Amino acid sequence: MAAPDINSPEEQARYQRGLEVLSAIDGGGAPAVMDGLGDIAPALAHHIVAFGFGDIYSRPALVPQQRQLITLGILAALGGCEPELEVHIRTSLNVGLTPEQIVETFIHTLGYAGFPRAINAITIAKKVFAERGLLPVSE
Amino acid sequence: MAAPDINSPEEQARYQRGLEVLSAIDGGGAPAVMDGLGDIAPALAHHIVAFGFGDIYSRPALVPQQRQLITLGILAALGGCEPELEVHIRTSLNVGLTPEQIVETFIHTLGYAGFPRAINAITIAKKVFAERGLLPVSE
Amino acid sequence: MAAPDINSPEEQARYQRGLEVLSAIDGGGAPAVMDGLGDIAPALAHHIVAFGFGDIYSRPALVPQQRQLITLGILAALGGCEPELEVHIRTSLNVGLTPEQIVETFIHTLGYAGFPRAINAITIAKKVFAERGLLPVSE
Amino acid sequence: MAAPDINSPEEQARYQRGLEVLSAIDGGGAPAVMDGLGDIAPALAHHIVAFGFGDIYSRPALVPQQRQLITLGILAALGGCEPELEVHIRTSLNVGLTPEQIVETFIHTLGYAGFPRAINAITIAKKVFAERGLLPVSE
Amino acid sequence: MAAPDINSPEEQARYQRGLEVLSAIDGGGAPAVMDGLGDIAPALAHHIVAFGFGDIYSRPALVPQQRQLITLGILAALGGCEPELEVHIRTSLNVGLTPEQIVETFIHTLGYAGFPRAINAITIAKKVFAERGLLPVSE
Amino acid sequence: MAAPDINSPEEQARYQRGLEVLSAIDGGGAPAVMDGLGDIAPALAHHIVAFGFGDIYSRPALVPQQRQLITLGILAALGGCEPELEVHIRTSLNVGLTPEQIVETFIHTLGYAGFPRAINAITIAKKVFAERGLLPVSE
Repeated sequence: MAAPDINSPEEQARYQRGLEVLSAIDGGGAPAVMDGLGDIAPALAHHIVAFGFGDIYSRPALVPQQRQLITLGILAALGGCEPELEVHIRTSLNVGLTPEQIVETFIHTLGYAGFPRAINAITIAKKVFAERGLLPVSE
Repeated sequence: MAAPDINSPEEQARYQRGLEVLSAIDGGGAPAVMDGLGDIAPALAHHIVAFGFGDIYSRPALVPQQRQLITLGILAALGGCEPELEVHIRTSLNVGLTPEQIVETFIHTLGYAGFPRAINAITIAKKVFAERGLLPVSE
Repeated sequence: MAAPDINSPEEQARYQRGLEVLSAIDGGGAPAVMDGLGDIAPALAHHIVAFGFGDIYSRPALVPQQRQLITLGILAALGGCEPELEVHIRTSLNVGLTPEQIVETFIHTLGYAGFPRAINAITIAKKVFAERGLLPVSE
Repeated sequence: MAAPDINSPEEQARYQRGLEVLSAIDGGGAPAVMDGLGDIAPALAHHIVAFGFGDIYSRPALVPQQRQLITLGILAALGGCEPELEVHIRTSLNVGLTPEQIVETFIHTLGYAGFPRAINAITIAKKVFAERGLLPVSE
Repeated sequence: MAAPDINSPEEQARYQRGLEVLSAIDGGGAPAVMDGLGDIAPALAHHIVAFGFGDIYSRPALVPQQRQLITLGILAALGGCEPELEVHIRTSLNVGLTPEQIVETFIHTLGYAGFPRAINAITIAKKVFAERGLLPVSE
Repeated sequence: MAAPDINSPEEQARYQRGLEVLSAIDGGGAPAVMDGLGDIAPALAHHIVAFGFGDIYSRPALVPQQRQLITLGILAALGGCEPELEVHIRTSLNVGLTPEQIVETFIHTLGYAGFPRAINAITIAKKVFAERGLLPVSE
């Protein structure tokens, strides 16, 4: 069985559906990390959009704010996901989470994954918040 | 500097505050995992309650349903946390998350931590849901 | 944008394609772990087959023996993936890897993930090999 | 139940106790990583000191040299904790561990977490030792 | 270049040296986990002893009590190492660490790897201590 | 039992054997990461070569192309192994894996360890491929 051609009409339709989901949460621009895949792994970029957003993120049982909270917790806990945390902190702001909620998610993480993972995630949040003029974060 | 005496009035007050937070979300009974610490690490049980629940979980920036979603995502992603997942799936039901939302949290996890972590977490959810007569989960 | 209906003709076609890929490598029977998802997360079972096998595993740049070697290394290194290791050790035998190669994959893992992960994976291999009468493994 | 006010006299007393423990091991200056939390998560900085050092690190069953050995092993094994490793390698020197013992801790780590984690930790140690004129490390 | 024959006199000498190191710390009996490797991966058992104990553990920069503290911290933090934790908790008792120190190592772990990893390790310690009549652990 | 002297004739013979294995796969130059160990942990550099390559990598049950596929999968899945990934992507090209196979290994990884680990590994591959004029990678 051959893998599907990502340029077929069926796959392009799947991709478009995913792109709509992604655009609704990230403010309209595909993240830079995705652009970087174009000359090395375009199929990966396709599947992140078509599967990750079109098939999974779009499922109605959780709303984007909930999905972003979960994603931030997971990425912080895994460690080594700094580029993805940066993307997802921006997306979290886009879907309406406040800086306080984002910081609190990482404080919550410390109980389950330890202080270092929490501190490292907050370091990334601080960078994003500084760029957007969101510091200091009130408590 | 000596560590604080967990039986001092100050520490007992901190413990009581944490116990109120914990009781409000877990239905009133301390989890069995905590009872098991009594004859080997009572200070750990104290700090889980006094610090984990009294100092952290009680912070108002996130509500219990949000904290449970984050916790489920983290525990699923870390792997090897089956006993804690079981406790937190029960707590998640107690604070009003539906079986559909709990399952969806684990499905969401697959994109960030892979299929095996998602499948293993759902295996634990299935055990908890079966005990509570919550199967099948509708979609 | 709504998530796709997994019972639509398009999704069923994707599922069938994935099932052909899966059947070719696992000897024809869907793994028990997948059956267990039916009453709790049928969409997850669908996407494991349609996406994991139909979209990814079927890509021609690596053959099944190569994919299984990589999978065994990853699962051993992640830890806490015992049920998935068991499935994938069986699949590895089905696609023609020898017991010696499977064991060697886990011995190779020790340099990158330490002795405990290697030992735990070999413990699972021993269980599978014993069931199939493949012990002792010659060197 | 509301979370405690970190500026209350009780919490400030807990913080002061933790700060004494921390100052005794890190040479008197709060680590830069903590300063960086001031405008984004002051409560996290408070709890690292009050709980992490005041409640846990101060417990008498292990002395600072032992705690630092354990911490170095954990941080090396987790991976992705480079900023924390840097802080803790300095602290380890402060409490009297020798460069040889610090390096040996990471060599010991390789058996349990693999060569890459050990090499990455030693890379951080090399940076700290170079700043302090502690290279080469004799064996 | 061929791999060395583990039955050559040179390798047997390396193995004997490792076995002396191992016997000195584990009370004289090779751990059961090693016996289990005999019919599936005898070379792995050889290298655990010859390399892990003969080449690494025997290095003088750290004494066995220190190595065991580090090992317990690493295994607890990694998660999914229950069989190895059980072996190393026994070894830790053999080299003179007290139950209080072992428990404290896991309590110390919580700050760096979170409560679940600490609780799971203490669950294993409780099992070992119960078998040896070492409960309750005083504080 | 004392640890072996890495400068003894026996150990130097083991080292030479490992160096031949390493040179055959990495194109003749010891990786820079090894050179960096010389003034801080020469014994670690010795054991990486003598044990990692001489004792393990040289075992005949898997050929270098297979070992590199497994290694790439493990390093990608562990996360936080960027320097090692860079070394091993170069080695993988040296032993004859194509850029397409290397990228595919990381795409395969996403199913078992999630999208972030796959994306981060491909980011490193892109850097190596760019240096060698191997972009774009065809599919």
